[in-house]
Amino acid sequence: MAKKNAFYAQSGGVTAVINASACGVIETARKHKDKIGKVYAGRNGIIGALTEELIDTTRESAKAISSLRHTPSGAFGSCRYKLKSLEANKREYERLIEVFKAHNIGYFFYNGGGDSADTCYKISQLSEKLGYPVQAIHVPKTVDNDLPITDCCPGFGSVAKYIAVSTLEASFDVASMSKTSTKVFVLEVMGRHAGWIAAAGGLVEDHGIPVVILFPEIEFDQKKFLARVDAMVKKHGYCSVVVSEGCHYPDGKFLAEQGTRDAFGHAQLGGAAPVVANMVKDALGYKFHWAVADYLQRAARHIASKTDVDQAYALGKAAVELALKGQNAVMPTVERVSDNPYKWKVGVAPLSKVANVEKFMPRDFITADGFGITAKCRTYLLPLIKGEDYPPFKDGLPQYVRLKNVAVPKKLAGFTI
Amino acid sequence: MAKKNAFYAQSGGVTAVINASACGVIETARKHKDKIGKVYAGRNGIIGALTEELIDTTRESAKAISSLRHTPSGAFGSCRYKLKSLEANKREYERLIEVFKAHNIGYFFYNGGGDSADTCYKISQLSEKLGYPVQAIHVPKTVDNDLPITDCCPGFGSVAKYIAVSTLEASFDVASMSKTSTKVFVLEVMGRHAGWIAAAGGLVEDHGIPVVILFPEIEFDQKKFLARVDAMVKKHGYCSVVVSEGCHYPDGKFLAEQGTRDAFGHAQLGGAAPVVANMVKDALGYKFHWAVADYLQRAARHIASKTDVDQAYALGKAAVELALKGQNAVMPTVERVSDNPYKWKVGVAPLSKVANVEKFMPRDFITADGFGITAKCRTYLLPLIKGEDYPPFKDGLPQYVRLKNVAVPKKLAGFTI
Repeated sequence: MAKKNAFYAQSGGVTAVINASACGVIETARKHKDKIGKVYAGRNGIIGALTEELIDTTRESAKAISSLRHTPSGAFGSCRYKLKSLEANKREYERLIEVFKAHNIGYFFYNGGGDSADTCYKISQLSEKLGYPVQAIHVPKTVDNDLPITDCCPGFGSVAKYIAVSTLEASFDVASMSKTSTKVFVLEVMGRHAGWIAAAGGLVEDHGIPVVILFPEIEFDQKKFLARVDAMVKKHGYCSVVVSEGCHYPDGKFLAEQGTRDAFGHAQLGGAAPVVANMVKDALGYKFHWAVADYLQRAARHIASKTDVDQAYALGKAAVELALKGQNAVMPTVERVSDNPYKWKVGVAPLSKVANVEKFMPRDFITADGFGITAKCRTYLLPLIKGEDYPPFKDGLPQYVRLKNVAVPKKLAGFTI
Repeated sequence: MAKKNAFYAQSGGVTAVINASACGVIETARKHKDKIGKVYAGRNGIIGALTEELIDTTRESAKAISSLRHTPSGAFGSCRYKLKSLEANKREYERLIEVFKAHNIGYFFYNGGGDSADTCYKISQLSEKLGYPVQAIHVPKTVDNDLPITDCCPGFGSVAKYIAVSTLEASFDVASMSKTSTKVFVLEVMGRHAGWIAAAGGLVEDHGIPVVILFPEIEFDQKKFLARVDAMVKKHGYCSVVVSEGCHYPDGKFLAEQGTRDAFGHAQLGGAAPVVANMVKDALGYKFHWAVADYLQRAARHIASKTDVDQAYALGKAAVELALKGQNAVMPTVERVSDNPYKWKVGVAPLSKVANVEKFMPRDFITADGFGITAKCRTYLLPLIKGEDYPPFKDGLPQYVRLKNVAVPKKLAGFTI
């Protein structure tokens, strides 16, 4: 059998460590040149495969590839593009196989969340049917930490660390100002459906910070919330609130959808944080400040968790090793061996059990009143934010790498997506 | 002459390094116990002096005081409380002198911005008149970098570094997503009157990032702005915008005041970033994301500038040394000796020339079109964000110190402010 090439693509929202997984894939493949030919990357994710816009990673130096480990974002470009079902758009799946065949690609490494696990699974199934079997391995990535089976998802630990550090620092600030000025600080974090990121804000309680967490898993009760904030401010002089963007009322309406209108009557400008902050001001009269972390949280490689970086790299590496062992339609996972000292190892999960399953915060990770995290949650979270892994700096700024991203010559006719 | 005690207070918005100045003051005073008795700190700033709520810093260990160097926020509490003019409220000034007299305080170190420089100056003048001369030394602090004479203000370099790093990281993120998703990212930063902080976002241009800066010094021109963003996106595929909270229209109306109303008809929820982002969406149709850094930027000790930390400490130390040399009504300053290699030394400015003067961005630091920074500005800014000075971490979080803040027994009757 002729030596096959590999294809690697990044999918969906990028993270501080998805490039560390890319680094793991490429460096490991380079160590097995006897079995794996070139690693091609998709320019802008799976779209690059559909349009045959492949990037030749062999054109990058060892140093450039190694720098991916400390560079946030998606070095080859990512995309938000969900392939439809096989029935609805078989044409796209067939095109993928055609491109793989044209470039002698036998390994498909797809680095993404739930949707891409599903795509990866379908490609593995279809390629077999079409007589050009491709080994499809999914590399987990999502700041939302909502993939099943794996103990955690690369990308999450670093966002969690950023949110915990930021909540701690801003809370120290508010504590200083609370005598005459700001008494309530509200930080909005990502997490449309699952409250894992918001939960990380709860870690500052160990540092004596009064904090109220608003999870998407818990229906928002305005009266209870305001009473809790008021009690915190009366006791501590100040209070921090970490609100998930997915926090919503019992009827499903997001807090951010307050029917806010601008001067032209356009719908709300968004943001759960300003809504919550103004709610506090209106009901309790406390002076507030609010922040929306948005992309800053998932791009913050400068304060990445070492655990997270290590795991992102390890799962990229494991994906290639699984491929070399002949595995197909699987995803390498993080298996927790022990909490304290934290020990973990790489496991493996069949994609059939990963695709389209979302993992929410277990109810016993959230306190009975719904506003905090339990000791069990703390035990889960703490190892994931542990360790620092600073990027190199030059002239005050991190030295993030930009690849050359040299195109592989096309062999096929164009394809419209 | 009996040995006098010292009084130290923190004023106004706190920073990532104001405690480093406190550390410089206290450690230096401790080295001169023959001349300076105890250092008392004001609980919640100058209010603590008025209400005789003094903190005995001699009750803190050398290790705790040394940890102030890496702890953000105001360790003794700060306040937003501007003393009125001598004529309007002589009672408060007299009370301060009374408290200083009761506690044998001969040195007054006031750590703040323009307002506190003014207060510091008045106290020095009045104390002489009232026959209880106090040496008043102002220690500069402001993230806004708007104090005159000093080349820069402690607190600014760290915010500038945070904004430059965050803009770089978020821009890498947007670049990855721009093919199918976000094309414009908007980051709102502090700076109501002066655009120094926004200018720091411009430093990412050296890393090839297309960025548009909106300064408070430049009247907002919506048409020109949208044309610039559109051109950037067409050329680079994406664009970042750093908008100062003080950015305003020619008539003085802030961008954040868009007449936005919530469901109850309450005035706007604030934020220039969502306003700018929606403007881009409405006019150009580009998908956007926006963030508001708020307190995160000025509290981010984890990514403080080493230059800034060093200067904050040095000016605290210099304040005590100036006092020991018999100086009064002065402020230690940063004097730039050379740009590259960056060299600086401690200078001194009379408070009469500091009080009530605001330093804006020079016009030649802003490009002719008003949307970027010039090479001259870059030369000024770069050394200020240089160097990292990471705090110690434990279990994934920075180890910031909380002092005991033991009260000094009161000697006087109460005072209502």
